[in-house]
Amino acid sequence: MTITNAPAPRASGATSSVAPGTRVAVSTVIFTLRRSAGQERASVALPLVRRQSDPHEGQWALPGGWLDIVEDLDAAASRTLAETTGLAPSYLEQLYAFGAVDRSPTRVVSIVYWALIRPDEMADTSDENVRWFDADDLPNLAFDHNQIVAYALWRLRNKVGYSQIAHGLLADEFTLAELREVYESILRRKLDPANFRRQVEGTDTLLPTDRFRKGSHRPARLYRFNQDVELADRGPLGVRP
Amino acid sequence: MTITNAPAPRASGATSSVAPGTRVAVSTVIFTLRRSAGQERASVALPLVRRQSDPHEGQWALPGGWLDIVEDLDAAASRTLAETTGLAPSYLEQLYAFGAVDRSPTRVVSIVYWALIRPDEMADTSDENVRWFDADDLPNLAFDHNQIVAYALWRLRNKVGYSQIAHGLLADEFTLAELREVYESILRRKLDPANFRRQVEGTDTLLPTDRFRKGSHRPARLYRFNQDVELADRGPLGVRP
Repeated sequence: MTITNAPAPRASGATSSVAPGTRVAVSTVIFTLRRSAGQERASVALPLVRRQSDPHEGQWALPGGWLDIVEDLDAAASRTLAETTGLAPSYLEQLYAFGAVDRSPTRVVSIVYWALIRPDEMADTSDENVRWFDADDLPNLAFDHNQIVAYALWRLRNKVGYSQIAHGLLADEFTLAELREVYESILRRKLDPANFRRQVEGTDTLLPTDRFRKGSHRPARLYRFNQDVELADRGPLGVRP
Repeated sequence: MTITNAPAPRASGATSSVAPGTRVAVSTVIFTLRRSAGQERASVALPLVRRQSDPHEGQWALPGGWLDIVEDLDAAASRTLAETTGLAPSYLEQLYAFGAVDRSPTRVVSIVYWALIRPDEMADTSDENVRWFDADDLPNLAFDHNQIVAYALWRLRNKVGYSQIAHGLLADEFTLAELREVYESILRRKLDPANFRRQVEGTDTLLPTDRFRKGSHRPARLYRFNQDVELADRGPLGVRP
């Protein structure tokens, strides 16, 4: 038994344990909701970037890039996302580190971030090498990026049940019907309007306003999220940049 | 705007963006419950290892070590934990990647894992350089390890509310009083026995057995966790090794 966490000789194998060839990258999963013509409800969509070089030249991949040695992880995620897609979400959350030995021809550990953006924040790009895809209908992506998206979707569909994650997909004020539609799109099923209203009104996460959405139906009250609850949800590391 | 996630020239600065000097380490936070003489309830404890070399020689640190280039992240966490403490939990979960530029004299990104073990799984070590500490009463640790433990404690105290995390701290069968004591120790407050019973019996996470704990009080029914729910809770990446 060794009792240090500094580099220690391995019991077997001739390679150094300092991992000289391991590089660190960051990638980002940006989810939004998008409704196509004829669709009953919106679906979850994310931007992908076409790779311009090997490995996997020509394939679609998550936006990302290498960590710079003088750059924090969060800063690297924001920078590489902006460089590749022009997107600049106000808050990126760390999702998971992917580091399987065979995920790339060379050894790369990717720290993956994710964020939600409202449909009106989708960058209007004329770049043919950046495109939004339905998260449930992806091509074969570079590296292990299909697995990464599947994990992010699983987290999204779990987290929506106990947190205010839908916040990131809505304007500051919204009706209960608009909130319900976000949940329906993420969970891919209809929710009963009366049950939904009862459930969200039973929590302290929503604050009613004095304003109403007027349209072809009867006016619907506008709500906003309770920021106090939302900030606690993000945890001690989840401070806005 | 660039449209590749391969290494790209930076807008400013002369350093390569491939981060030649960044190394990847793994560290592990192992929580258990420990009751000291005279304490009303158990407290959360974790093992630390005394560093044998610079930086921070002589200070206590989380068990860990360098990622080997031919080793998956999970395997590195298990190996370095066993090498430094002799502990081998059946399941380690990835917690967070810590990568602030100034967290170490050289650039190190640490992928942190965590696990819970039952008090009877605590390794009986005679090594004076491995010691169990109360998580709420730590000395100044090496690097940013105080911050890492604080984050892990925050996650533990949040997660206990909506998942079966207490499972990892109990034997396969347990009474409701024993389960309540685990929650009380983690949350550091008394819980009302009748309310607690109502809450946990209202979920599908506990399965009653036909067996009873007999002692000085009247016999108490033994329960076990519903494995189906527990596995779903771990997510698609949370497979047992």
